[in-house]
Amino acid sequence: MQRFVLFFLLLICFESVAQHEDSSLIRQLADEILSNGKAYENLRVLCKTIGGRLAGSSQMYKAEDWGVKTLKLMGADNVFLQECKVPRWVRGGKDEASIIYNSTSGKPVTSNLDVLALGNSLGTGLKGIKAAVVMINNFDELDKRKDDIKGKIVFYNNPFNPRYVLPGQAYGERGIYRRSGPSRAARYGAVAVMIRSLTQSVDNNPHTGSTAYDSSLPQIPCVAMGLRDADNLSRLLLSGQKVTAYLKNKAQFLTDTVGHNVNCELRGSQFPEEYITVGGHLDSWDVAEGAHDDGAGCVHSIEVLRAFKAIGYKPKHTIRVVLFANEENGLRGGTEYAEAAKKNNEKHLFALESDNGGFAPRGFSFGMSQEQIEKVRQWQPLFLPYGVYEFVGGGGGADVGPLSRLLKTAVSSFKPDSQRYFDVHHARNDVFENVHKRELEMGALNMAALIYMIDKYGL
Amino acid sequence: MQRFVLFFLLLICFESVAQHEDSSLIRQLADEILSNGKAYENLRVLCKTIGGRLAGSSQMYKAEDWGVKTLKLMGADNVFLQECKVPRWVRGGKDEASIIYNSTSGKPVTSNLDVLALGNSLGTGLKGIKAAVVMINNFDELDKRKDDIKGKIVFYNNPFNPRYVLPGQAYGERGIYRRSGPSRAARYGAVAVMIRSLTQSVDNNPHTGSTAYDSSLPQIPCVAMGLRDADNLSRLLLSGQKVTAYLKNKAQFLTDTVGHNVNCELRGSQFPEEYITVGGHLDSWDVAEGAHDDGAGCVHSIEVLRAFKAIGYKPKHTIRVVLFANEENGLRGGTEYAEAAKKNNEKHLFALESDNGGFAPRGFSFGMSQEQIEKVRQWQPLFLPYGVYEFVGGGGGADVGPLSRLLKTAVSSFKPDSQRYFDVHHARNDVFENVHKRELEMGALNMAALIYMIDKYGL
Repeated sequence: MQRFVLFFLLLICFESVAQHEDSSLIRQLADEILSNGKAYENLRVLCKTIGGRLAGSSQMYKAEDWGVKTLKLMGADNVFLQECKVPRWVRGGKDEASIIYNSTSGKPVTSNLDVLALGNSLGTGLKGIKAAVVMINNFDELDKRKDDIKGKIVFYNNPFNPRYVLPGQAYGERGIYRRSGPSRAARYGAVAVMIRSLTQSVDNNPHTGSTAYDSSLPQIPCVAMGLRDADNLSRLLLSGQKVTAYLKNKAQFLTDTVGHNVNCELRGSQFPEEYITVGGHLDSWDVAEGAHDDGAGCVHSIEVLRAFKAIGYKPKHTIRVVLFANEENGLRGGTEYAEAAKKNNEKHLFALESDNGGFAPRGFSFGMSQEQIEKVRQWQPLFLPYGVYEFVGGGGGADVGPLSRLLKTAVSSFKPDSQRYFDVHHARNDVFENVHKRELEMGALNMAALIYMIDKYGL
Repeated sequence: MQRFVLFFLLLICFESVAQHEDSSLIRQLADEILSNGKAYENLRVLCKTIGGRLAGSSQMYKAEDWGVKTLKLMGADNVFLQECKVPRWVRGGKDEASIIYNSTSGKPVTSNLDVLALGNSLGTGLKGIKAAVVMINNFDELDKRKDDIKGKIVFYNNPFNPRYVLPGQAYGERGIYRRSGPSRAARYGAVAVMIRSLTQSVDNNPHTGSTAYDSSLPQIPCVAMGLRDADNLSRLLLSGQKVTAYLKNKAQFLTDTVGHNVNCELRGSQFPEEYITVGGHLDSWDVAEGAHDDGAGCVHSIEVLRAFKAIGYKPKHTIRVVLFANEENGLRGGTEYAEAAKKNNEKHLFALESDNGGFAPRGFSFGMSQEQIEKVRQWQPLFLPYGVYEFVGGGGGADVGPLSRLLKTAVSSFKPDSQRYFDVHHARNDVFENVHKRELEMGALNMAALIYMIDKYGL
């Protein structure tokens, strides 16, 4: 019995020494990132000298060059490009939309809408499309009113549910109208689709994002409109007005081209052939600077590597920073990364993605076993001083998804505060000025802390 | 033994029923505030139709009228004003400052600075003050260089320590230079003071705030400057340049006048003579709209009352909403509230203040016994779904301080995320546009939840 007690005391003692070591190393990472952080300046250069960088665009190549240069500057052991085919969707110019209705005095009124064609949407042709508008709140209603759709423009107007504390929940629920809404409407003969943007912002910025056509149905154009325009249009229709809309956009697909994941490594000291990945996606929608989505995730990930180098931390496993290609409208980069890893028989211990913006940190979600989540949750006291308290299930992000599926790699997604994310998501106000320097740094330091803990203790 | 087990099971059962009741009531409050919230619109009216509302100004009276009207509209049982004397400091016009130095080619260069006189600072006189600048990083250095101060303008340039995770800690450390810096410099013969603004923002906005003169020393003018100007001036001085500064400001005190706390009640059903206070301060600096500081606290508090009424919750204790007068440069409102409570032998159970901005909630700090804090901490699972996880010591805010001191009332301060607070604090960018609707609402709902729990279970 006494031996058992002694063993137990030694264990506690050992654990508290280890915990002290960890908290002090995390403090070093925090001090380095909060005092000498480069994430904010790196983001400024990416946003302000390159800006929007959709897959296949000339800016995509500029962003890849920026990635290579920046990773080298930050001290990576080796930097390499990983080729993948990427789609090449182009907007082709300004999207136009207007509505025509009769004023209370009976005179026809034309009112312009602020719209953006959805990513992957096709164009209207040079003459545009003019048709009566039918407002639809959900697919049930669409099915019920299927005889009323032919030749019309369907306007999906179901708003975010404000009662969800996390706007991402509303986005998850409503996302299907952006992805499948055009084809669902086309099935009943609609000629185009307009959707209420997937946001609960108080401004009128339209929010683009991918749609996906069912290839067995007519591929009709689809635009998103800002919330004020959507509310106005909704009021008109609810008041019994007949509204005609005119849409014109020039979007099209050019032939696929070659893009790249921009990768680098900090080689592991004990297990150089076992990988921990940390990354964000380098592509962004064309209309914004992609500051939160996902410039922040890129500079977060680069900062993890920089801070490790700066404080002289030598990881046991090889840390890979990956700036993924083409997350927004194809996921070809994330897919290629996992397929190559599988082909090369690489061993991947863990992959962390940051693709929820550069806001103040709250936690991490994980795609791994409950036991593994419990293990990480034990580390909460080390993260609390830096604002991180949530370690929950729910999976990693889109780019580490293929790694999780193909290699069963444990994955995670960084979770910053999410109240502001959908204000800027895929919209023209996703600019550098809307990222806060210290919030961005706080994200990077918590990501660095998590990578450090997993590198040290495994999963 | 069996009886004991039965009792224990019943207790668990009872507790889980109670917890379910609480989580469901808090859910009702959340739904009400997130779906039908009025805090954001109330704040818009306060900021955009009244704006800056320093104690003693005509806007102070307009804000009081707004408070009375708004509290009535939101359904208070009774609304009443509580008179207090307030100081009447006036800026008197635009503050001016420039520096004169020799360019590398030897030619004199004049460069304007963006400055704000500190609150309670006196003016320079109509001719202004022109003198050589001495840069001082801390009071130790001031004391060491005391023979070099006479006739000079002292420039305090100690920056926020970026390693502090919470900027409030840096503010706490550096605040003494704003409060006591002028008198400390005057002791050694300085003719004026310029301070680096108490912020770590990336812009150049100067941040005002109260200074406090030692009446036994000359009361010299003091202005705050933005960080870019401070960095430029610092570089010039460090490079060995001799720099002369010219300051002109017209601030002065007029005679005290009468202001008011704007109070209202939701009468308690069981203990109408026992009070729970929730409040923010109605005054703000003259140069901003006082959106975060502290319009947010006012509309938070009003929203607690509105939500209780809207869901039909009848509190046991009387809930008092208090919009405090003159927090910024006198604390006369908070002092009067506590003194009147003491004089009238009122029993105050709890007082919650919101004066840290309208950002996404993180927790509450408390000024009460450790046992009481532990009791509240047990409620954490009810708050976690709404982003609140911290229940810590550290006291309430300034306005509930006198209640804590005079009546030993348990007090608390709402703690939202603080990374952005000092970007706008006492600066001209503290405007409505920098408040996020849902973050503001999330604050109100957590405050309502805390008041509900304390009303129900006591402390």
